[in-house]
Amino acid sequence: MEKHSIPKATLGRVPIYLRYLRDLPDESGATISATKIARGVLLGEVQVRKDLAFISGSGKPRVGYERSKLIYDLESCLGSDSLTNAVLVGAGKLGRALLDYDGFEEFGVRIVAGFDCNDEVLRVSKGKLVLPIEDIEMFCTDNDIKIGIITVGQGSAQEVCDKLVACGIKAIWNFAPCTLSVPSTVLLRQEKLALSLAHLNSQIKNN
Amino acid sequence: MEKHSIPKATLGRVPIYLRYLRDLPDESGATISATKIARGVLLGEVQVRKDLAFISGSGKPRVGYERSKLIYDLESCLGSDSLTNAVLVGAGKLGRALLDYDGFEEFGVRIVAGFDCNDEVLRVSKGKLVLPIEDIEMFCTDNDIKIGIITVGQGSAQEVCDKLVACGIKAIWNFAPCTLSVPSTVLLRQEKLALSLAHLNSQIKNN
Repeated sequence: MEKHSIPKATLGRVPIYLRYLRDLPDESGATISATKIARGVLLGEVQVRKDLAFISGSGKPRVGYERSKLIYDLESCLGSDSLTNAVLVGAGKLGRALLDYDGFEEFGVRIVAGFDCNDEVLRVSKGKLVLPIEDIEMFCTDNDIKIGIITVGQGSAQEVCDKLVACGIKAIWNFAPCTLSVPSTVLLRQEKLALSLAHLNSQIKNN
Repeated sequence: MEKHSIPKATLGRVPIYLRYLRDLPDESGATISATKIARGVLLGEVQVRKDLAFISGSGKPRVGYERSKLIYDLESCLGSDSLTNAVLVGAGKLGRALLDYDGFEEFGVRIVAGFDCNDEVLRVSKGKLVLPIEDIEMFCTDNDIKIGIITVGQGSAQEVCDKLVACGIKAIWNFAPCTLSVPSTVLLRQEKLALSLAHLNSQIKNN
């Protein structure tokens, strides 16, 4: 089954299934039914069957899923069987919050290091280094970096983006509130936190 | 024109129009054409006309928009003519980053204060107080708080959410990676940062 056919909502439930399946006691057997999984994760059975069909095909009638195979398929679908390496540029408050957050690995991405133009911030945050921006190119080559996260201000975001592209990055996750241009070969995701809040606010006002 | 008919993408461009119109020199006249605005904000003219039609109706032929009326309509649409007050609970790194960010006011929301269960964090961040969670109910009543932002961990998010609902909050913006239950009268927006990253990662893997 091709991975890109998995809906985003299903992808969001994958860590829930994984946590449940990994935490099952060894004596609970090599196979497990969708009914039991649904009960365990407190989701509707129809939903669970649909999600698992996307990820691992249908289970065997009256047997269900082979647990180890299901875990393998769930991990592959998230990419958490082989973590993708990312770097972050801009070690301000938001940048450091993202660097410190350890929930991304569960979704298949490891933020390996941060970079900042301020030489003085060279320091360790939860075991992660924040390095001077001058070192980024060599670091990306040496560490097979695929994703660049931008948490600098609006004024320097495009410059940072160009630098990341030059480092051979495959995707950019941008938190700066501005539109970036990237080559068509590079994926770009714009995070719009202020807009989420504005949207919530306009809903309140119209309620 | 009803505000809830404004598409989210249009809403996202409103601050761009506002910045341009407010910065125009006084001698540039009382009216302005969509063509001139489009040139000024570096957006396509068709796009600009469509956006402004949503927000302020069509301009007068050969005259354009009355500038002060257009600014008024843009401000009303964002709600930045009358800011909505918000509080944030959980003054960790992400919480403090959001408290410090001053870009939300441009979108009509002011984060008035932060709250934390840790008494020691009682301090000022960019002029904003972080208060003990015990004070939240009185604070919300006194300051007409409409939005609650949750940046605590998964374990205490529902408890904090219940507290905010009890404070009479109208909307919750949740950053904790878990599903919250709220009464049907309260709006809930779940921010899923890790999922955005997972999605980007799965696109790279399938490229």
